[in-house]
Amino acid sequence: MAPIPSSTTGADALCDTLLNNGIDVCFANPGTSEMHFVAALDRKPQMRCILGLFEGVVTGAADGYARMADRPAVTLLHLGPGLANGLANLHNARRAQTPVVNVVGEHATYHVKFDAPLTSDIEALAAPMSHWVRTIAASDAVSSDAADAIAAACSAPGHIATLILPADVSWGDTKGGRVAKAKIPPPASPSGDAVRAAAAALRNGKKTVILATGSALRARPLETASRIAQASGARLLAQQANGRMERGAGRVIVDRVPFNVDAAIDDLAGTEQIVLVGSRVPVAFFAYPGKPSTLLPPACRIVELASPDTDLVQALDWLADELAIPASTRPLLDATPPPDLPTGALTARSTIVTLGRMLPDHAIVCDESVSSGRDLFAWTRGAPPHDFLPITGGAIGLGLPLSIGAAVACPGRKVVCLQADGSGMYTLQALWTQARERLDIVTVILSNRSYAILHGELRKVGAGTAGRNARRMLDLDDPALGWVKLANGLGVEAAAVDTVEAFVDVLGMAMKRPGPFLIEAVLAPG
Amino acid sequence: MAPIPSSTTGADALCDTLLNNGIDVCFANPGTSEMHFVAALDRKPQMRCILGLFEGVVTGAADGYARMADRPAVTLLHLGPGLANGLANLHNARRAQTPVVNVVGEHATYHVKFDAPLTSDIEALAAPMSHWVRTIAASDAVSSDAADAIAAACSAPGHIATLILPADVSWGDTKGGRVAKAKIPPPASPSGDAVRAAAAALRNGKKTVILATGSALRARPLETASRIAQASGARLLAQQANGRMERGAGRVIVDRVPFNVDAAIDDLAGTEQIVLVGSRVPVAFFAYPGKPSTLLPPACRIVELASPDTDLVQALDWLADELAIPASTRPLLDATPPPDLPTGALTARSTIVTLGRMLPDHAIVCDESVSSGRDLFAWTRGAPPHDFLPITGGAIGLGLPLSIGAAVACPGRKVVCLQADGSGMYTLQALWTQARERLDIVTVILSNRSYAILHGELRKVGAGTAGRNARRMLDLDDPALGWVKLANGLGVEAAAVDTVEAFVDVLGMAMKRPGPFLIEAVLAPG
Repeated sequence: MAPIPSSTTGADALCDTLLNNGIDVCFANPGTSEMHFVAALDRKPQMRCILGLFEGVVTGAADGYARMADRPAVTLLHLGPGLANGLANLHNARRAQTPVVNVVGEHATYHVKFDAPLTSDIEALAAPMSHWVRTIAASDAVSSDAADAIAAACSAPGHIATLILPADVSWGDTKGGRVAKAKIPPPASPSGDAVRAAAAALRNGKKTVILATGSALRARPLETASRIAQASGARLLAQQANGRMERGAGRVIVDRVPFNVDAAIDDLAGTEQIVLVGSRVPVAFFAYPGKPSTLLPPACRIVELASPDTDLVQALDWLADELAIPASTRPLLDATPPPDLPTGALTARSTIVTLGRMLPDHAIVCDESVSSGRDLFAWTRGAPPHDFLPITGGAIGLGLPLSIGAAVACPGRKVVCLQADGSGMYTLQALWTQARERLDIVTVILSNRSYAILHGELRKVGAGTAGRNARRMLDLDDPALGWVKLANGLGVEAAAVDTVEAFVDVLGMAMKRPGPFLIEAVLAPG
Repeated sequence: MAPIPSSTTGADALCDTLLNNGIDVCFANPGTSEMHFVAALDRKPQMRCILGLFEGVVTGAADGYARMADRPAVTLLHLGPGLANGLANLHNARRAQTPVVNVVGEHATYHVKFDAPLTSDIEALAAPMSHWVRTIAASDAVSSDAADAIAAACSAPGHIATLILPADVSWGDTKGGRVAKAKIPPPASPSGDAVRAAAAALRNGKKTVILATGSALRARPLETASRIAQASGARLLAQQANGRMERGAGRVIVDRVPFNVDAAIDDLAGTEQIVLVGSRVPVAFFAYPGKPSTLLPPACRIVELASPDTDLVQALDWLADELAIPASTRPLLDATPPPDLPTGALTARSTIVTLGRMLPDHAIVCDESVSSGRDLFAWTRGAPPHDFLPITGGAIGLGLPLSIGAAVACPGRKVVCLQADGSGMYTLQALWTQARERLDIVTVILSNRSYAILHGELRKVGAGTAGRNARRMLDLDDPALGWVKLANGLGVEAAAVDTVEAFVDVLGMAMKRPGPFLIEAVLAPG
């Protein structure tokens, strides 16, 4: 670790601590109280500073970055309201188990008591979406507090750490000394008892689901999990939402628990025991009158192979050893032949089938297709191998920012953002950052011009068909959103298409050229 | 009060309680957990439901509505992340002393413990920006809890009340009974001692500032305050930010405490005593190295005529009586002759001078001009009488939503939204609601293509001139924001201008026609 020269400020100490602990990307939306930190960043060209024009872009990008880079970015947010604007996507990051270090500016320590107009309780705002929150008390505490924040963020499986930086702590001089090193605890080791209990369960002949999430959904551990499933007759399944999954042709076929409650209950019907691999017992996304909150049959036995903070790769390896699975037991890999291209008017299905067909190898798919993409896994069977990064916490407005982070983390790979129109509006400012940073992202807007999911939900809750007031709250067709103009206004080239043939042409062009491009897929009704 | 038929749900009881207490505008961004409330709203055509495509639009519109209507609207927000997205503008509403009733959906009471993906601690999120928070425990408590929320919101000077509505409380049947009536406490009566102390101070010949805010800034009480100032030799001043001020030709001339710390200290230098009329002791917006947090001379005496929850109109009337001000003492009214129209390239000054010159009578000006509008009061001296609604809490992204609420509250009046470009990006989705509701709003984007305020702040904190990383975080010119395309994409007609002459033409047209229009005023550098 490099020593901090004695004349540096708290802001410099923070930059040095971040850089020396491997954090060199800062997604930022600063304000006055962060100006000394901005000045310190300005002295550190090694730090890549990326501006978002809204804080939800910043936090969502940090989520996408860490999902792909396997290390956190830092966010820079302006006081309580700036943090508040970023909370929805921190909620998603929290549910994705993504490591994020937030730096939130605060008034100078002596200024807080005057309750100036921008004053609010930042710690209280941070707490619901953070695993770790601390306000730095003095310039000389910056480096060690920042190291603690990094350690908290990076402890398995990944956490949200929010470090509040008062302006005077930022501009104040430090006494110097060494930059603190983050003491990141290793993930928990699997428990032998848990491994043996899981092995026994997998040998007892009962109808079993192996439910995986987190690092168990990378290609290699999925192969182990699939071999365990193949050998034991169990069914391998992923959680409903997961931070990242490696899937596609030549990789393990793994479905996810359906979003729809009835579909999930049907899917899990008859399950006698479930083996949790870093996952949680599946529950309904929402409650509905007369429907249960839990999705498993009431008598289903829960067997936890590994808690979320465990080394899941090691746990699966150990379980495979314990079961003495022969080398001849192969994982169930996706060898589905590529589907024929559809034709005619674009629908959600034909858009997604076409996209799967035309995906370049090792693309990164950021998915917020919401109601249009419920069957995405089935429709993209046999697509080239890719990383799949879905929205995880249900706080819409993640897709576009997520694609920024993924593209920054993986400059050599094409990022495809599959974005529902209604949800995309929450953080459309992300397109500007795509353009500014020349990021290699193809955004496909699934444009059905309504909160289609809510029309469905209105029916599901038994509330009937939408009348005038309900339509005024659920339809987006008056006026229609002009995504091509919106993208152009934010510096991103774009085209609208409404047939598969036109989509194929534009998508082919967009996949070949570098830099951002947006395609509005105008979907036929129904 | 109408009885609730016994078969109605909690959601119906909520609608009935809102309507029967005079709340008939709902700014909404609902989700699944609010579908029964949406269904109930659908049965109540008397409630005007207005969709925002992002929650900051919803809460900012509710702020603008109540500032002009003098009664609250209700917001409808989806769970914790939906509330979080609305917090920044609730922060502004809180600082504006605006009454707002938020209805935030929550999972069914029995579902919360399962920690489904969208679960978060809604009460904790609400608390920092709310004066009153309650989760409704049962369907039969809906009406009385809603009445309590309305009473809390409407108690002087205006508060944020957040009512959390679990899905099962919403869909559950009530036993019926009467709709609760909100028990709104009257504002506090002025204290005779305080009035006499203020009168004595105003007679002692010391250099005095009368600092007013809230309802004291309407035309009539301002005349009283101005007469008091004229009679006593005091200077009448408004707080730096206030929810609403009635100003313009024929109304009292009243300046506000400058935003800039040095300017404010200069402006208040020599003040020996300050009389607070619902206002707070002025403090610096931000702390800066070596500069004080307070703006008044250290020896300045504080005399509180009336606390914020007091009837300020009554307090001023009483003070005028106590001082026995003769009828011949006239208020200092604005009789400034209209300025000549500037010419040539648009600057912040020429844009605002022109706008002031061309304002229709009784327009409503929603101001988030930020750095471009620091001298707006000087530049619009002599403009036709108008209401002035500025950003109050420093959480940028209020201007466009605020204009929605003002236009909904005052359908016969032209609303002018003066919006800085960087700040406008936080909630640009508001333009779509302007179009959908055909609101009579002219938006003027002050386009300087940078966070100009932050370049200034970077210099002010002594951090020097922006280098590469700082410019990457403070400049908005790569790519330039295309506001005309953005507006068109959201259904609003628009034009860009860069000379006064072109601005005059387009503004004249936009002022004459009904419905929304956006003008991007591309400002010359410097």
